[in-house]
Amino acid sequence: MQPSRDSSRDPGGPKSDVVATAERSKSDVIATVETPKFVPVPGVPPRCGHLFVLGAGVVGAEVLAQATSLPPIERGPALDLKVVGVARRRGGAYDVRGFDRAAVAHIVSERRATAGSDEVAPSTNAIDFPARSTQLEALARLSDPVLVDCTAADGMEAVYEEALLRGIHVVTANKKALVARRDLTDRIFAAAAKTGRSFRYEATVGAGLPVIGTLQGLVRTGDRVKSIECALSGTLGYIANELSKGVPLSVAVATAKSLGYTEPDPREDLAGTDVARKAVILARELGIPLELEHVTLTPFVPQEALDAPDLEAALVGYDATFAARMAELRTRGERLVYLARISVEGTRAAYRCEVKVGPVAVPQDHPAATLDGPTALVAFTTERYGSSPLVVRGAGAGGAVTASAVLSDVFLTLSGAPVSSRGARGVAASS
Amino acid sequence: MQPSRDSSRDPGGPKSDVVATAERSKSDVIATVETPKFVPVPGVPPRCGHLFVLGAGVVGAEVLAQATSLPPIERGPALDLKVVGVARRRGGAYDVRGFDRAAVAHIVSERRATAGSDEVAPSTNAIDFPARSTQLEALARLSDPVLVDCTAADGMEAVYEEALLRGIHVVTANKKALVARRDLTDRIFAAAAKTGRSFRYEATVGAGLPVIGTLQGLVRTGDRVKSIECALSGTLGYIANELSKGVPLSVAVATAKSLGYTEPDPREDLAGTDVARKAVILARELGIPLELEHVTLTPFVPQEALDAPDLEAALVGYDATFAARMAELRTRGERLVYLARISVEGTRAAYRCEVKVGPVAVPQDHPAATLDGPTALVAFTTERYGSSPLVVRGAGAGGAVTASAVLSDVFLTLSGAPVSSRGARGVAASS
Repeated sequence: MQPSRDSSRDPGGPKSDVVATAERSKSDVIATVETPKFVPVPGVPPRCGHLFVLGAGVVGAEVLAQATSLPPIERGPALDLKVVGVARRRGGAYDVRGFDRAAVAHIVSERRATAGSDEVAPSTNAIDFPARSTQLEALARLSDPVLVDCTAADGMEAVYEEALLRGIHVVTANKKALVARRDLTDRIFAAAAKTGRSFRYEATVGAGLPVIGTLQGLVRTGDRVKSIECALSGTLGYIANELSKGVPLSVAVATAKSLGYTEPDPREDLAGTDVARKAVILARELGIPLELEHVTLTPFVPQEALDAPDLEAALVGYDATFAARMAELRTRGERLVYLARISVEGTRAAYRCEVKVGPVAVPQDHPAATLDGPTALVAFTTERYGSSPLVVRGAGAGGAVTASAVLSDVFLTLSGAPVSSRGARGVAASS
Repeated sequence: MQPSRDSSRDPGGPKSDVVATAERSKSDVIATVETPKFVPVPGVPPRCGHLFVLGAGVVGAEVLAQATSLPPIERGPALDLKVVGVARRRGGAYDVRGFDRAAVAHIVSERRATAGSDEVAPSTNAIDFPARSTQLEALARLSDPVLVDCTAADGMEAVYEEALLRGIHVVTANKKALVARRDLTDRIFAAAAKTGRSFRYEATVGAGLPVIGTLQGLVRTGDRVKSIECALSGTLGYIANELSKGVPLSVAVATAKSLGYTEPDPREDLAGTDVARKAVILARELGIPLELEHVTLTPFVPQEALDAPDLEAALVGYDATFAARMAELRTRGERLVYLARISVEGTRAAYRCEVKVGPVAVPQDHPAATLDGPTALVAFTTERYGSSPLVVRGAGAGGAVTASAVLSDVFLTLSGAPVSSRGARGVAASS
């Protein structure tokens, strides 16, 4: 690189307009590359991860689509993925040769066409996919097997444990098993430790944003997390934003529902339960044995409204209160955001942790004050990130970004040291 | 969790003050935990990664300190680290039993006491640590061996390649090997692919911020990156900030130097070379075969000032120009930031990529406009993160955060599938 290069391109003479120099050259195209080069990996066939995907809803379908249409990987470990199984609430498909994109699309669309009312019914039981143990046994015989949970089913702890004990890695987008009672959740980690397999769940908090991995990095390397503040509900972020524009509460909720931003029953969003789950996952990542009932949860709207038989009518009753509140916030130059706040004080031996989830008024210079739409934000204040917190923000919901977090976890799992001894043979061959 | 719980704690009656509710309960402490529980991992001794650390400067010393004083790990894969080697420019220390914190402190302080003028001299040659091949051979015989490069040496490509071919994972904080000519850099990745070992370098861009891993996740899962904008020089961020407060250019640079924010010769910061290197690393992560000389680099100050024999005097000559420029920016409501901008257009088969590094005026609502001090920022605009870019920000320099990125890479490397077959034996024992 020639630092002098640019001044020769821009012979503006002494004391030239520095800022404008950068602006003037805005349209220069420096590197025009027609054909990207691939890194040859001589003599080594790519490793292949074998995926069994549970659930074919919004996230599952996207995981299947992405996994079966990945672009060639130009650098880094040579890894390929093969989808060998898909399990839905009613039956599944398994083929050791793997499904291609068309086959997967067929499986997904078939499910959509036949599932009927099942489609919107929340999954509340652990998926007992056909002949589970037989399937897991078959999966375990393949190289680099990964079970991928894209359901919202309860009770998956047992499935994960069984898979891990059989030597299968587990990647999940399902929050439930991570907020189950600690003794149940711990069994998953114990199983992973016992067999040396990976259990990853980046997609459970902030969708595709690097939240869990970042926090694990901080904790594992001995940083002390003092607080985590996060805005993790795109739905409530959207509604709060509408309110700040002067839209009545009842209208904002109805609009969010009509745009498909809320659950079929908006109470589930307004109650804040999902945000509380994510807060528990983050707190437990700090090593704190927190249970869901320890979270101080304030719903976005008063509990009375959530308890009312007719939610819409009840919300209309709060329109005036909310409008007055928003006017007051505007006067004070504040914004309404729905935050989860985890704070830890004290030493490792004796510490105090509080986890609060609820609507909060924040000043304009708060990191969360500039959020709009479904943007999520997580800010870590730690010993090492004291004066300038580590902040991650961006679209925090949606099938595509959530699925990419799931697949990214799959790659992280497989790009560690190999399960087979192929690597060692490679060394021997080269020496 | 009981959503109704909070309303019972706060019997504010109907239409209660929702926003204030959350604020009123600010001082409640919900979960007070005196003794965190550890997840027992019955019958399985923790795996142990064996580290050989090159360099014992600011980053290396911190890596050694952190690696030898890690807190117990409560969850996730049971992993332990042992530092078995430290190599400095003059000699090194190796002990298969591992060094504890005191031993490491001794090695580091001894180096500081005896190194003399070597301390500030930039390392420009590949470290040929004593009996390199012998050392690597010894390291390769240990389980989970990792070579950790904390030097700023040139030409380390050959060392990484040799290590990887011997079956040793490589983690580096050193940018040089990643911006060497593509054919040289490619040899590292080819070696990693050949033996299935990991090559990780998160600390090379944005210190501890999750930049490389995030980008790899996007690319591997098939997202299309359209642009990356980043502020990656804490030094230039600080100087730009001082300028915006009305401090003359020459004074801002002198202050930054006196605070230790700049390299011994501030020309190295002002030239923008280090930012250009980081931009190349990011662009190559996209699969683009970019070389350093393809970067359009505009120094922070005119090249004439950098070429002047007396930098300080030369900068005084630009004080008035910069002051006028800053006044103009203030009028337009803009901020001066030093940005690297990578933009990609077109399809995989034929695309245009431009990489520009230089001072830019941005509007107040630009993500980089709110940066202050040594805060770094990276914003990824992609197909999936279109309307709301994925942004990572926070302290982007310093020994502690850089070292934590290095160790975090070590844990990622080791928390993948195990090298040994202990995992598989664990399964057999349990079934």
